[in-house]
Amino acid sequence: MIDTRLDLYPASTAPNGWPGLICRYADYLPVTDQTPIVTLHEGNTPLIPALALSERLGRNIKVLLKYDGLNPTGSFKDRGMTMAISKAKEAGSAAVICASTGNTSAAAAAYAKRGGLKAFVLIPDGKIALGKLSQALIYGAEVIAIDGNFDQALEIVREMSEKFPITLVNSVNPYRLEGQKTAAFELVEAIGDAPDWLCIPMGNAGNITAYWMGFSQYYASGKAKKLPRMMGFQAAGSAPLVTGQVFDKPETIATAIRIGNPANWAKALKVREESGGAFHSVTDVEILSAYKFLAGEEGVFCEPASAASVAGLLKVSDQIPSGATIVCVLTGNGIKDPDTAIACAESKLHKGIAPDITSVAKVMGF
Amino acid sequence: MIDTRLDLYPASTAPNGWPGLICRYADYLPVTDQTPIVTLHEGNTPLIPALALSERLGRNIKVLLKYDGLNPTGSFKDRGMTMAISKAKEAGSAAVICASTGNTSAAAAAYAKRGGLKAFVLIPDGKIALGKLSQALIYGAEVIAIDGNFDQALEIVREMSEKFPITLVNSVNPYRLEGQKTAAFELVEAIGDAPDWLCIPMGNAGNITAYWMGFSQYYASGKAKKLPRMMGFQAAGSAPLVTGQVFDKPETIATAIRIGNPANWAKALKVREESGGAFHSVTDVEILSAYKFLAGEEGVFCEPASAASVAGLLKVSDQIPSGATIVCVLTGNGIKDPDTAIACAESKLHKGIAPDITSVAKVMGF
Repeated sequence: MIDTRLDLYPASTAPNGWPGLICRYADYLPVTDQTPIVTLHEGNTPLIPALALSERLGRNIKVLLKYDGLNPTGSFKDRGMTMAISKAKEAGSAAVICASTGNTSAAAAAYAKRGGLKAFVLIPDGKIALGKLSQALIYGAEVIAIDGNFDQALEIVREMSEKFPITLVNSVNPYRLEGQKTAAFELVEAIGDAPDWLCIPMGNAGNITAYWMGFSQYYASGKAKKLPRMMGFQAAGSAPLVTGQVFDKPETIATAIRIGNPANWAKALKVREESGGAFHSVTDVEILSAYKFLAGEEGVFCEPASAASVAGLLKVSDQIPSGATIVCVLTGNGIKDPDTAIACAESKLHKGIAPDITSVAKVMGF
Repeated sequence: MIDTRLDLYPASTAPNGWPGLICRYADYLPVTDQTPIVTLHEGNTPLIPALALSERLGRNIKVLLKYDGLNPTGSFKDRGMTMAISKAKEAGSAAVICASTGNTSAAAAAYAKRGGLKAFVLIPDGKIALGKLSQALIYGAEVIAIDGNFDQALEIVREMSEKFPITLVNSVNPYRLEGQKTAAFELVEAIGDAPDWLCIPMGNAGNITAYWMGFSQYYASGKAKKLPRMMGFQAAGSAPLVTGQVFDKPETIATAIRIGNPANWAKALKVREESGGAFHSVTDVEILSAYKFLAGEEGVFCEPASAASVAGLLKVSDQIPSGATIVCVLTGNGIKDPDTAIACAESKLHKGIAPDITSVAKVMGF
C-alpha cells in the first residue's frame, strides 16, 4: 500500500529534476508499481575531474572522482538504503534495525524516518564516539548501546529481525547492493562508456560487488561497450581480501573499511577474476597522504576510507595504460570526520597575530 | 590564460554529466571564453518534496526543500565561490582572502586550492571553534587568528586586498551573487515555473538578493511565467531587516545568519517591495523545532540557520494560499554542526543495555 504522503508526489514533482535513483533506474531494479518509493533524491552525484592527480600521473591519463559523499546523508550507503527501506515498507515492516556506528546507521535512520518507519541502531558500549552518531540521533533513531562487542550486536540484530516484524538493513540485506549498482550506471552515462579502471575501497566488499553488477548489466544491455578492470584497495591493517586471511583485530584510521572478515568475500574474488582486476593494500600513511592531496590539491574533501582508492591508484601507477580513463570512488564526505581533518592540518593555523595590516601581511608572506 | 590543468578537460569530460553551474549557465553569467572555469561541479542540488510538512499544512499546499547543503563544501556558498574564484584567476590574482569562521571560509579555501591559488582566512582569536574551521584547514587555507574582533578582521582583509594582489572573496565580492542566482534557475527548470513563495533565511541578505536576480532574469527571458513572493526570515536575536534597527550584539544559535548589519540591506528591502514579499523573525526555539522536524520527519539534515526558512513558513502558515507551491531553501549541511545535533537529540541514546535479545527487545518496546 502506498503511503498517503507519497501520493502527494506521484512520481516526481520535478518534471526535469532528478527523481532519485529508484525512479530513474526502475527498469533495472527489483521494484514494481506497488513499491512505495522512499527517496531523498539520492544519486546523481558529481563526477569531478582530478586535475592535479591527472597532471601528476601524466601520459594523458585521466582520473575522475565519483564524489558519492554528496549523497543526502553523506555517503554511498544512501544508494542501497533507498532500496532497502522501500522494500521493507512494501513488505509491511514497521521498523528497521542495524548494527553500525557509522555511515550505515545514518542512512538507515534517515530513510526509515522518511518512510515513516522506526529505526533502531545497535552499537557496542564503551566505544561510543557521539560525533559519529550525531546523524543517527538527529534523524530520530533509537540508539541502543549494549554491554558487548560488535559481533554480539550483529548477532542480536539478526535474531531480532527473525523474531519480530523488523527488517534488518545491515549489509546482508540483498536490496542494498541493487541500489548501490546504480552508481555504475551513472558513470557509464557520464563518460559515454565504462572507464578503463575502477578504483574502489573495500571493507565488506559490497560496493565493488555492486559496481560490477551495474557495469555488467549495462554491458549486457549494450549501454556500455566495455567492462572496467576492478581495482580494489584495502587498508594494510585490515586487508583480508589481499592476504587471504581473516583479520581478527583489524586496525586502520579508515574506520569505514575496518572489517576483518568481509561479508562479500567470495563475490569480491569473483569480481576480481571476471574483470581481470587486482586487489592491493595501502598503509594508513598512504591513505592520509591521498586524503590530504585530494582536499588540498583537488578541493575535494572525503573520508579517510575513501582516499584508499586514490592511494591505491598511486601505488600501482606504473601499471596504468597511457591514455586510460580511471574513476576513483570517493564513498563518504570528509565533513563527517572533522577530527581527522584537524589532526592532519593544524600546522596552518597562526594564532595570536596583532590586528594590524603589517603583522598580517608578514604572516602571509607579503 | 587558461590553466594547463584545466586544458585536460576542455569543457567537461562528462558529455551527459553536470559540468558545474558556470558551464551550464554561461549565457546568464559574466564570463567569456577566456574565463578559466574553476569548478567542483557545484549546483544541481536535489529539490526534495517535504512530505510531512506538506501533510501538516494541508490544503493541497506543496512544500519543496532546495537542499543546497549537498554542494561540494556543504553549503550554497559554493555557487558564489566558483564565480568569485574563476574571476579572480582570470584577473591574474595569485591569492584570495576572506574573514569568516564558517561556510565562506570552507568554500573559499576549496575553490582557491582547486584553482591553484593561495587561500587566507582571517578570524578573531579567542573564538576559535576548531570544528568550524576543519574544512578550511584541510583544504589547505592559511588561517590567521588576530587579537581582535570580527570587524577588525574584515577591515584588515579589505585593506590587504587593496594593497596587495589578493582578491577579497567576502560578500562584497560582486561575482558571488551572480553565481548564487543560478539556484533560482534550477528551481524554475525543476518545477516548470517559479514557485508561488520562496522561503529563505537572511543574514547578510545576499542570497535572497541573488535568488531574486535569478527569478527576474528567467522571467524576463520567458523561461518563467511568474515571479515568486520572496519571504525572508531572520533569527529574532539578529533581525535588523525585520525591525529596521542595527543589532550591535546579534545572538542566535543559527550562527550562519548571526549578522547585525547586513551588507545587502537596501537590496533586500527592494526585493521585498518588488516581489510583494514579507520579512519575519523566528525564535531560536522555533528554529530548533523546525531543524528537528526536518531531520526526524523528512530525513533531511540541515544547519540550524537553514531551518529558519521552514520555521518562518510555519509561522505564517495561515497566510499560505491553498494549493500553493512553496520552496524552502536549506542553505547548509547539518553535518557541519554535530554538536547541535547531539544536544538536540541525546535523549534517544540508551546506554548499558545487556547484550541479549530479551533486554534489547524490551528497550525497543517489543
